[in-house]
Amino acid sequence: MHTAVDVITAKRNGTPLTEDQITWIVNAYTAGDVSDEQFAALAMAIYFQGLTDAELFALTTAMLNSGTRLDFSTLGKPTADKHSTGGVGDKITLPLTPLVASYGVAVPQLSGRGLGHTGGTLDKLESIPGFQVHLSEEHIRNQLLDPGGVICAATAELAPADKKIYALRDVTATVDSMPLIASSIMSKKLAEGTDTLVLDVKTGTGAFMQDEADARRLAEKMVWLGKAHGVATTAVLTRMDTPLGYTVGNAIEIEESLDVLNGQGPDDVVELTLTLAKHMLAGAGIEADPAENLANGKAMDAWRAMVTAQHGDPDAPLPTATHEHYVTAPTSGVLSRMDARAIGEAAWRLGAGRQYQGQPVQATAGIRLHAKPGDSVTEGERLFTLYTETPEQFEAATRLVETAVEVAETYTAPEVIVDVIR
Amino acid sequence: MHTAVDVITAKRNGTPLTEDQITWIVNAYTAGDVSDEQFAALAMAIYFQGLTDAELFALTTAMLNSGTRLDFSTLGKPTADKHSTGGVGDKITLPLTPLVASYGVAVPQLSGRGLGHTGGTLDKLESIPGFQVHLSEEHIRNQLLDPGGVICAATAELAPADKKIYALRDVTATVDSMPLIASSIMSKKLAEGTDTLVLDVKTGTGAFMQDEADARRLAEKMVWLGKAHGVATTAVLTRMDTPLGYTVGNAIEIEESLDVLNGQGPDDVVELTLTLAKHMLAGAGIEADPAENLANGKAMDAWRAMVTAQHGDPDAPLPTATHEHYVTAPTSGVLSRMDARAIGEAAWRLGAGRQYQGQPVQATAGIRLHAKPGDSVTEGERLFTLYTETPEQFEAATRLVETAVEVAETYTAPEVIVDVIR
Repeated sequence: MHTAVDVITAKRNGTPLTEDQITWIVNAYTAGDVSDEQFAALAMAIYFQGLTDAELFALTTAMLNSGTRLDFSTLGKPTADKHSTGGVGDKITLPLTPLVASYGVAVPQLSGRGLGHTGGTLDKLESIPGFQVHLSEEHIRNQLLDPGGVICAATAELAPADKKIYALRDVTATVDSMPLIASSIMSKKLAEGTDTLVLDVKTGTGAFMQDEADARRLAEKMVWLGKAHGVATTAVLTRMDTPLGYTVGNAIEIEESLDVLNGQGPDDVVELTLTLAKHMLAGAGIEADPAENLANGKAMDAWRAMVTAQHGDPDAPLPTATHEHYVTAPTSGVLSRMDARAIGEAAWRLGAGRQYQGQPVQATAGIRLHAKPGDSVTEGERLFTLYTETPEQFEAATRLVETAVEVAETYTAPEVIVDVIR
Repeated sequence: MHTAVDVITAKRNGTPLTEDQITWIVNAYTAGDVSDEQFAALAMAIYFQGLTDAELFALTTAMLNSGTRLDFSTLGKPTADKHSTGGVGDKITLPLTPLVASYGVAVPQLSGRGLGHTGGTLDKLESIPGFQVHLSEEHIRNQLLDPGGVICAATAELAPADKKIYALRDVTATVDSMPLIASSIMSKKLAEGTDTLVLDVKTGTGAFMQDEADARRLAEKMVWLGKAHGVATTAVLTRMDTPLGYTVGNAIEIEESLDVLNGQGPDDVVELTLTLAKHMLAGAGIEADPAENLANGKAMDAWRAMVTAQHGDPDAPLPTATHEHYVTAPTSGVLSRMDARAIGEAAWRLGAGRQYQGQPVQATAGIRLHAKPGDSVTEGERLFTLYTETPEQFEAATRLVETAVEVAETYTAPEVIVDVIR
């Protein structure tokens, strides 16, 4: 017979919890028999004491088992899924999902909304007129058969323990704990019933795991957890010091994703899309160069079919902002820094993100970058265009993006892809 | 503008909180604007990161200022108060309050109920037929004038922040944090409006602070906090490896207190009562040997007047238990250990204490010791008498007291009084 105080005390004192204790407290918390204050104290104790591999495995399994695990084994096609730990301007899911689907792979991309300085894939998609993110399990299954890709909200039945624990961590300053991040991501992703999982683990100023060694450790743990649960898991360690591409926001990120699907788009977005696609296809047993379906329009066809299947109009013009504001280069030279976090926070202030769960976001808000680190700039040249429906935020957002920029004499931008962890 | 997440994050990261942050979060939590889960996460972060002196002072002051501070300056007599950090068989408040009051000192002894293995003064007093522990502030004031001593429940207006925080710590495994213990005790005691405060800080197996160095540090911090708030504060560091006296329970501890007031009683209880009384009298500016009023009956007169003023009958027989059970010495030799914690837990199981707030206790439950460490015992000789109304608990309680005992060839019991910290 366990009690919450015994479990918290053990963790607090550095005594590893048993599988039985972990399963009990996750189930009791999900059922409401252990209180929010007790689980918050446990989460903070885990922040300080960490978890052993055995504890991490038990926690992830308990969270996974708190709900349904989807089963797509009867679809008659391989499944592949991708998760990003969250970055600024990270719209990769948007071109990636139809691209991989265009090779005959089912891509059940169950996504989240933005909170804080990183945007949410669902928020971006909802800037497409008519697009629906809430789908039934039957709808998801049919859409995975044809056209093959689906990007929608996770249903309440998937890892309900994670939903409850994540909401609690968010208000108790226990988000940035490696084992809590790993168990949250993996319980959710494993519940999605995929055969192959590719993780995009970010490191840098705009990432949750700013330190590369921490990000690598997180990637290794998640790959281990995935494999231990029978899912072919690969992690790609990528830099997140600078926003991905030239857009940060909602509708403007859709616009840039369409460029990629048209065989164009920014180098970094294209490179990361192709890298992740290669690993997803390889996991699904398909040998192909994904650049081909970007070039020949098949990925764009899959995108249009996916948008249509989710009640969106792929031909409708995207909404544009009522108010714009320019920020220029403070001096001439080579752009040596364009800090992802500050730009993410500025976009958030402009209305692209939310401060609390459930708050609506502005489809048109965001920031367009006119240069990236490594580019030469001239004093007074336009660096950013800020977009919003609430122009009273321009001042605060401008101050933020101004702190994001540094100009030097020379600078070589680092590679986006740092490493691949299998 | 503070947010709970900012305050928790700062503490978690080891950044000292400002006075303003601490005052804000204590007030917001007391008002219900900061949630239980947020304060629980903060308490656990404090458990790991500790508090600086400035933070401890700000926290204690904010908790003190969350309610009324009583003012007895118009009574026309000095006030002195005592607090014990809690021990097993610790009935010292019972003879001490009337003893000090018998010298013309007002003793406003606002006390608590037992929780866990240490008993509660109010629970013990309620075994006296008719005794009332809930008194109005006016009643308290009148009783402090005559007969001078009062032992009652703290009113809801005294340090309400402490009441809320203590209840939270109790269910979140954040009780044993030195700064949280110090701020809890001192906010409550300072709110009682005393001029002089004597702290009985326990160390040993039956104490919250088992380690002597920790107990000494707690004592020093509390003396510092008291003086900084204008109260003449002394701490007496005392051993709590063995229960105080020969009784652990409710009515049977009253019985032993009456022995002390009759000029008899166990040596350790008498010694500690006289030591604490001396410091309280000295703080009140009175030079006297408190042994005199134990010997001449004046302390007993003050006790009888106090019990009567609180609607109790000092002549009514105390209730006795329906069921008794004996536990004998396992071997012959010198008793070298009689563990306070195990005996406290056994008494708690027998019904003398409670498992959750609000649970009723048995007036008659408890344990009588027939020997103490240093005494010679013979195999089969009676060591304990267990009392209860729920005899199904005898088995578990017997197992506990059996683990409490060790017999050796020789043993010298240590002094009860370890040190005095001014």
